[in-house]
Amino acid sequence: MEILILGAAGMVGRKLTERLARQGHLGGRAITRATLHDVVEPQVPENAPFATTTLTSDVSAAGEAERLLAGRPDVIFHLAAIVSGEAEADFEKGYRINLDGTRRLFDAVRGLDGYTPRLVFTSSIAVFGAPFPDAIDDAFFLTPLTSYGTQKAIGELLLADYTRRGFLDGVGIRLPTICVRPGKPNKAASGFFSGIIREPLSGQDAILPVPEDVRHTHASPRSAVGFLIHAATLDGSRLGPRRNLTMPGVSVTVAEQIDALRRIAGERVAARIRREPDETIMRIVEGWPRRFDARRARELGFQAEDSFDEIIRIHIEDDLGGTFAA
Amino acid sequence: MEILILGAAGMVGRKLTERLARQGHLGGRAITRATLHDVVEPQVPENAPFATTTLTSDVSAAGEAERLLAGRPDVIFHLAAIVSGEAEADFEKGYRINLDGTRRLFDAVRGLDGYTPRLVFTSSIAVFGAPFPDAIDDAFFLTPLTSYGTQKAIGELLLADYTRRGFLDGVGIRLPTICVRPGKPNKAASGFFSGIIREPLSGQDAILPVPEDVRHTHASPRSAVGFLIHAATLDGSRLGPRRNLTMPGVSVTVAEQIDALRRIAGERVAARIRREPDETIMRIVEGWPRRFDARRARELGFQAEDSFDEIIRIHIEDDLGGTFAA
Repeated sequence: MEILILGAAGMVGRKLTERLARQGHLGGRAITRATLHDVVEPQVPENAPFATTTLTSDVSAAGEAERLLAGRPDVIFHLAAIVSGEAEADFEKGYRINLDGTRRLFDAVRGLDGYTPRLVFTSSIAVFGAPFPDAIDDAFFLTPLTSYGTQKAIGELLLADYTRRGFLDGVGIRLPTICVRPGKPNKAASGFFSGIIREPLSGQDAILPVPEDVRHTHASPRSAVGFLIHAATLDGSRLGPRRNLTMPGVSVTVAEQIDALRRIAGERVAARIRREPDETIMRIVEGWPRRFDARRARELGFQAEDSFDEIIRIHIEDDLGGTFAA
Repeated sequence: MEILILGAAGMVGRKLTERLARQGHLGGRAITRATLHDVVEPQVPENAPFATTTLTSDVSAAGEAERLLAGRPDVIFHLAAIVSGEAEADFEKGYRINLDGTRRLFDAVRGLDGYTPRLVFTSSIAVFGAPFPDAIDDAFFLTPLTSYGTQKAIGELLLADYTRRGFLDGVGIRLPTICVRPGKPNKAASGFFSGIIREPLSGQDAILPVPEDVRHTHASPRSAVGFLIHAATLDGSRLGPRRNLTMPGVSVTVAEQIDALRRIAGERVAARIRREPDETIMRIVEGWPRRFDARRARELGFQAEDSFDEIIRIHIEDDLGGTFAA
């Protein structure tokens, strides 16, 4: 089977590619080729048991989606997106990539006769906007408070309609905040949720811009990859017309995140977190969901961690080679 | 103040225009000009106390929205849409008019500096898709089961984001089924809800294709116009970022509709309804919402009828000149 990954150079895309290269199959079928696409050159995984092609272009450019689908990939992972902070700062770019790029991809699939690939679309909990109930259930309405969230919510609606019409076989998954993100900080306003774990474990100071009672839901990059693979192989008939699912995660306060860090890495590491309140980030975070009752996804077999301790241990294992800067 | 009505040739657009011509003002401000737009020539109301301009074009064509906004209207009523049956039959046309047309209009408003008009967008209860709770509350999620409903749901999301960004001052209203629709019967699956009242009152037989225990929510054309005017004049700060509202209506069974007809027009009129069960229509109607808890709209002052009797009386008064074929 052939795979196409859009947004393959991103953190989740890269980890997904590595995981697929390690296992060599998807849903019991051997992978024969993976096409990796992004705006910057994606990394080719080492020792992949399948052919890989890398492509670099703007997915929203005319004709680009058609070119990417030339090999009629069996599974498409659509992870490409302008992140929330940038989509908020650059209105037109966010709509061009996140809305038009997604729609052009869906339309390119629609344009191919007799072709109905499984298309996994990464949506986001940014589709929800405050005020919220204590836990957001699967029937809660989408009232995004960012342009990014709006673009993702529109992508979900298109995915469901194109699937209902038989143009593609879509599954949308709303990722919780992915934590701990490895590597350098990005422009996302949610960056500090990872930063306060990642930087201290590397011997660096980290900035905490919000109060410690801020509650948020997290899943590890390893879980995110697990969600994607499960979404790619799930029996679509179990979903019916409601193709978009809130993924499970671990709901904790920032204080609980820090407690977990202290338990795992000690007081010296936890002491590397500096409190520097940032009104802008606080205001953005205020509008974010805190807890989900992701019952449908759990019933469909999507699994996340059981504790934030586990999330930290996965970061140390997967991204730090098993050690940290005590 | 200047008004722009898109979709002015439709039933609701025409009744809105007539009402504005009668009252001459909107929210206490005298109307100086109304621009009436549609794909077919809109009717100019008689004796309007303001200047009227009619325009005929495709609202989704490049540059068209900019042309319509040249006079910087203070209030825009965006009623233009491809209806559900046609949007389902012609996928591309539905998306072009209902999604691209709406987005181009919003973008044209955004392109004008220092211009933030009140924009009233008619959405639809087609944004909801079965299964439903007994009554759909204001936080129930949008899972449209038609392309039309998808396009309306996307319009709502864009309206909210463009409003949040300060590009326009939008209010979206989800109209229930409008009953009694004047004019000739049509082939819409929902047509019988009006037909079983309208035809008997005109001395014609009407066909009832569903069982009498089918429940549905209705509002009169007069209420629909009332919703639009209230949405145009409502203090936007009372809405916050959730700019889209389910409108109130009268939730009745078909049996209750017929009882009301009998009370108002007598047994001879009610006897003109012929039961001819239609499996296809029954299955379509099964997927429609039956009842809404439109609390937010009511709290914000939107008003519908209190009974189906009132809906019938309004039809007789507004569309039949006060009489009917006993």
